[in-house]
Amino acid sequence: MLDFETILNNVRETTPLVHNITNYVTVNDCANILLACGGSPIMSDDEGDVEDITSICGGLNINIGTLNKNTIPSMYLAGKRANALGHPVLLDPVGAGASRLRTETAAGLIDQVRFTVIRGNISEIKALAQGSASTKGVDADEADQVNAANIDSVISFAKAFSTRTGAVVAITGATDIITDGTRVCCIANGHPMMSRITGSGCMLSAMTTAFVVANPDTPFEAVCTAVIAMGLCGELAYERLSPLDGNSTFRNYLIDAIYRLTPRQLKEGARYEMR
Amino acid sequence: MLDFETILNNVRETTPLVHNITNYVTVNDCANILLACGGSPIMSDDEGDVEDITSICGGLNINIGTLNKNTIPSMYLAGKRANALGHPVLLDPVGAGASRLRTETAAGLIDQVRFTVIRGNISEIKALAQGSASTKGVDADEADQVNAANIDSVISFAKAFSTRTGAVVAITGATDIITDGTRVCCIANGHPMMSRITGSGCMLSAMTTAFVVANPDTPFEAVCTAVIAMGLCGELAYERLSPLDGNSTFRNYLIDAIYRLTPRQLKEGARYEMR
Amino acid sequence: MLDFETILNNVRETTPLVHNITNYVTVNDCANILLACGGSPIMSDDEGDVEDITSICGGLNINIGTLNKNTIPSMYLAGKRANALGHPVLLDPVGAGASRLRTETAAGLIDQVRFTVIRGNISEIKALAQGSASTKGVDADEADQVNAANIDSVISFAKAFSTRTGAVVAITGATDIITDGTRVCCIANGHPMMSRITGSGCMLSAMTTAFVVANPDTPFEAVCTAVIAMGLCGELAYERLSPLDGNSTFRNYLIDAIYRLTPRQLKEGARYEMR
Repeated sequence: MLDFETILNNVRETTPLVHNITNYVTVNDCANILLACGGSPIMSDDEGDVEDITSICGGLNINIGTLNKNTIPSMYLAGKRANALGHPVLLDPVGAGASRLRTETAAGLIDQVRFTVIRGNISEIKALAQGSASTKGVDADEADQVNAANIDSVISFAKAFSTRTGAVVAITGATDIITDGTRVCCIANGHPMMSRITGSGCMLSAMTTAFVVANPDTPFEAVCTAVIAMGLCGELAYERLSPLDGNSTFRNYLIDAIYRLTPRQLKEGARYEMR
Repeated sequence: MLDFETILNNVRETTPLVHNITNYVTVNDCANILLACGGSPIMSDDEGDVEDITSICGGLNINIGTLNKNTIPSMYLAGKRANALGHPVLLDPVGAGASRLRTETAAGLIDQVRFTVIRGNISEIKALAQGSASTKGVDADEADQVNAANIDSVISFAKAFSTRTGAVVAITGATDIITDGTRVCCIANGHPMMSRITGSGCMLSAMTTAFVVANPDTPFEAVCTAVIAMGLCGELAYERLSPLDGNSTFRNYLIDAIYRLTPRQLKEGARYEMR
Repeated sequence: MLDFETILNNVRETTPLVHNITNYVTVNDCANILLACGGSPIMSDDEGDVEDITSICGGLNINIGTLNKNTIPSMYLAGKRANALGHPVLLDPVGAGASRLRTETAAGLIDQVRFTVIRGNISEIKALAQGSASTKGVDADEADQVNAANIDSVISFAKAFSTRTGAVVAITGATDIITDGTRVCCIANGHPMMSRITGSGCMLSAMTTAFVVANPDTPFEAVCTAVIAMGLCGELAYERLSPLDGNSTFRNYLIDAIYRLTPRQLKEGARYEMR
């Protein structure tokens, strides 16, 4: 079983400093959710700045959501420096499969940087793991959705992708699948409204990086806990909504719920299965 | 009369995917309002990425609010590709008239890209349509405000600009004027508090693109409905404010109101006149 | 004593237009707090755009939070143009001391641009004033915190730094210290929760610029008032929180409180001491 109390307390007691090279769409939410969970964010994406910044941090979160010719080299530089320093590095391959530049950048990064965690939706991970996928832009394609009929094959390719890359692989969606190549955790937490805000994936990646930094000996458990925490807080945020509230208030309540999250809530609300 | 039910339902039933090349100030709000109205956002602004991304989308929203030497070529590339694919393209000429780069970029885009919609405040549209305007930065100058005395001349130049560009022209402010060169819709919805948040114009442009994508046969009606929807939701958001709430909560409530908007609310709350 | 009524009313009656070259993490909050306090924001960071834009504004806010090779030259260009026009210019040296690029850029800007105000946390200001500091990224290091034992030496180096640069120096944290080289204002307003959101420093810098633009004859008093206003609104925002609210709602309430702030609240809530 996951030791939620230890994992969450490790984050809150060590204030993990996370270097983010991330998209400008959801960057503010990423910073605020890092602060909410007990971490501390820094954003830096210039070639001349990223190596210094990543050196003073505990971990690195690379998100290719609005990649460009200036920030791509920075991702390589920062990733290699973080590797050299032994810092955990997470890849969020936003939109892999949706454009050649995104697919190639994600694949190139996986080739040259050792990732501790790779987190994406099913379409993105399929594009990287299998070289092909349906795509609906930055959201998972319906044709790719995990369901009872295909879950075994999804777990199978996720394990293979984890083994090939050495990373904990987290495929998030209605059902989340986390694997370190051997163990598999299937998570049922979450709420459909999380897909009606921008950034629930990006925020999860940022927060997961903090969890992994603060729990260096148990990265798989740290990823599982972060994914459960985000899903559970999506449920808690939805419960707070009044009839006039929509997705903007939901986003605020989601971050608020992470801020207030207790180990007890995790223990009582987690819905996961280890395979 | 506008068929609000059909137009709104078309958006919600087809989840139009909108490619946004937009400023980093209000980009998160643009993404969330697209999700609120029933669309889906993608942001991409690198020359090496925009053609692939725009190809998988239904429409393109170009907003020059924080244009730079890297994103300007991307605007041309994406616009031309969207034209080639027959996708609707919207231009939001933020700050046209306020700097030479902004005015020239907007004019150059109009010259080389066929826009389905051009939406801006009166000062921006005047700068592009007449080559001169007062300016107060990214807000309309008071000297330019539409009023009873000048509305006929504003309508007249808006029609001429629409005829010249082939675009539906939307001049938004206290009174909104929409024209396709022949028909004119004057809209009274809205609330002064909308000018006390950043991004009400940018959000409207993003949402309007989704409405036009989802209603390909009736772009004029789609634009009118989007503008009415935004104004009405500004009114609804204002009504929800408590005495301690300010512009940040107003922004959240505005997006929330779009999320909850029904055809019935539109029918009962719309205040517009066709000329 | 500070004349809060005059200083605040000057902002609200003149709608100071502020050009911001700022980071993409907190830019939306900076725009909304400028609107909340009564100012008006423009963001522009391209070399080809910044001189025109700064020329139509009343003041310039330079924040190096996500500096890059394209925006650094823009900071110099805009700063020099603002100087030539006699506009107030504020520097927020985010992360100075945390990387060579940040420290050198801040130092270079101070060398070539005449700043009206330099506002940062104690670690950033120490890095610039003394050439060395502890650093915890973009947050002040605990080793640097101002306390009863070291406040005299902090005031002493702040005064020297103010005299050297000609700027009002504002070191903000649990205790804020503002000096024009002669006068010193120590401010006790604020709430620890302000450090659990991103952007409280960036927002303060943006708002301070508006206050200085609107009060050209009393920059020191304008800075003190802006810092007191932000701290007091942090207290007011905290008081509004329900048990489920976290840092995201706190951020909204902070901006809301600035929007609703009255001279009377300032008079009754200000906790400061002139030395």
